[in-house]
Amino acid sequence: MSTAEGYGEASELRSFGPAKAAARGAVATMVRSAATASLRTPHTGTVVFKAGERPIPAVALATEDADVIHRWLRAGPVRVRLQLGCHTEPDVDSANVVAEIRGREKPAEVVLLGAHLDSWDLAVGAQDDGTGVAMVVEAARLLARMRPRRTIRFVLFMNEENGSAGAKAYAEAHASEVHVAALESDAGAGRPLRVVFRGGEGGEAFLAPLLQPLAALGTDPAPARQDHFGADLHALARKRGLPTVHLIQDATRYFDIHHSAADTVDKIDPVALAESSAATAWLTWSLADAAGTLAPPTIEPPPKEH
Amino acid sequence: MSTAEGYGEASELRSFGPAKAAARGAVATMVRSAATASLRTPHTGTVVFKAGERPIPAVALATEDADVIHRWLRAGPVRVRLQLGCHTEPDVDSANVVAEIRGREKPAEVVLLGAHLDSWDLAVGAQDDGTGVAMVVEAARLLARMRPRRTIRFVLFMNEENGSAGAKAYAEAHASEVHVAALESDAGAGRPLRVVFRGGEGGEAFLAPLLQPLAALGTDPAPARQDHFGADLHALARKRGLPTVHLIQDATRYFDIHHSAADTVDKIDPVALAESSAATAWLTWSLADAAGTLAPPTIEPPPKEH
Repeated sequence: MSTAEGYGEASELRSFGPAKAAARGAVATMVRSAATASLRTPHTGTVVFKAGERPIPAVALATEDADVIHRWLRAGPVRVRLQLGCHTEPDVDSANVVAEIRGREKPAEVVLLGAHLDSWDLAVGAQDDGTGVAMVVEAARLLARMRPRRTIRFVLFMNEENGSAGAKAYAEAHASEVHVAALESDAGAGRPLRVVFRGGEGGEAFLAPLLQPLAALGTDPAPARQDHFGADLHALARKRGLPTVHLIQDATRYFDIHHSAADTVDKIDPVALAESSAATAWLTWSLADAAGTLAPPTIEPPPKEH
Repeated sequence: MSTAEGYGEASELRSFGPAKAAARGAVATMVRSAATASLRTPHTGTVVFKAGERPIPAVALATEDADVIHRWLRAGPVRVRLQLGCHTEPDVDSANVVAEIRGREKPAEVVLLGAHLDSWDLAVGAQDDGTGVAMVVEAARLLARMRPRRTIRFVLFMNEENGSAGAKAYAEAHASEVHVAALESDAGAGRPLRVVFRGGEGGEAFLAPLLQPLAALGTDPAPARQDHFGADLHALARKRGLPTVHLIQDATRYFDIHHSAADTVDKIDPVALAESSAATAWLTWSLADAAGTLAPPTIEPPPKEH
């Protein structure tokens, strides 16, 4: 089984390559789709041009078409004519969706569970991030009648794929609140493999007992450190030391469909989704109801992944 | 491993359904793609309107989109607006490609090995029928310096997918010649599983010794009867009793890509293709060089498959 851990690195070429290429005089860029399977299926994704960088057309080719161009390149220069139908529309007002279960003892301390509402428009975004939203809503349903020690806040962020405006607005609006932990469901519908976290000293000892019940789902109950966390927690993490807990799901087939026209509901394994929903609900509950909290990380978050 | 044997039946809905629907008043038809895998990949294929039948628009939906419409239909009537970019162009002159190795003893007796040059235009037709053409050309290369008892004729037919004009023209032009056996390579690039034939009494006893060497390729050397044979042999078979021999290849993944934009060269397993090429060359050689010939079938060929 494979996980999504390499995606951030692999997609940097698509996200940041065009700006670098433009600085060196490129008129456009093409990348091979960051895909693990293809039936002539191009994958899209963020392309970043920072202030002062020169935006140029940037495309991702289906792996089959990238193969053809690679073969042609061996024989000499290749001339390509790009005809693109994509465009960027002006921003419109939209909204995050927020709900919470008020804590019984420390209502001012918040455990945040998030996912994102938007998706790339090639398909319905069933797994990016429909199933993430389903996991958050299912966790809310499972926990609705419980009363945890701290407040659990369920947040469905708007505009993760295209600038994270919802995450930035949330971080701004809730800057004064204490977030003792945050979780994000944005890695498909695969089954729950293990739990990683970003936090300060003693994190393993704090989390280990909370994770034991996950062994019943076949999830490795030993917590491990990992700097990756979801894009929607990034803005909040930069405001203050934010402890994050991340459920690692099986992503063996996730990048067959991720950011492509094939991200449709038929690809979802409902049993795996139910298992990851249960794991997410438990993680959220146990972090909110524990006697103590995870120590915040002492270092800055790494650059945002796309 | 699965083979292509069910495709003829499964594709009848797409091929002949529109004419039947039109006769009952339909304004258009949609079918689920006859596909074994999909990343939102629609499959095309022949649609037949015979003289006097009313042609209507007919589309094949990607399985994911067919699923959605099925779900909607459970809730009530569904209204669909079709916008099709396809059209039929007028016929143009084209050509079959024919080469032969003249027989040393009975040059007037022909063993025909065929494949087809054309393909659906969503992709390059790498396996339908690029690899069939490759198998025929490779058989010709392997046998070029041999001198079989009978003539071997290699035929690359034009226009198999859209009316079999090349096959009809060949049957017409060569109606007076004696074809003692015909083989067609039009089932992808999978490995050689077994050999089927269409012929008269004693066919098994005649073929069995010829097939023994194929066991070295892992091919079942026991001949079996089967009424299916390739579309390009149909016109010839209707002219006279034509004995046909058909190499059954592994088609487990063939209908993932068949008639779709994904029929590209990266999907080909070169080792499997080499094995099926060798099997085809051997079959062709041994039928042309055998002391006797396969008795012709005594019954008419079944309706042409698409």
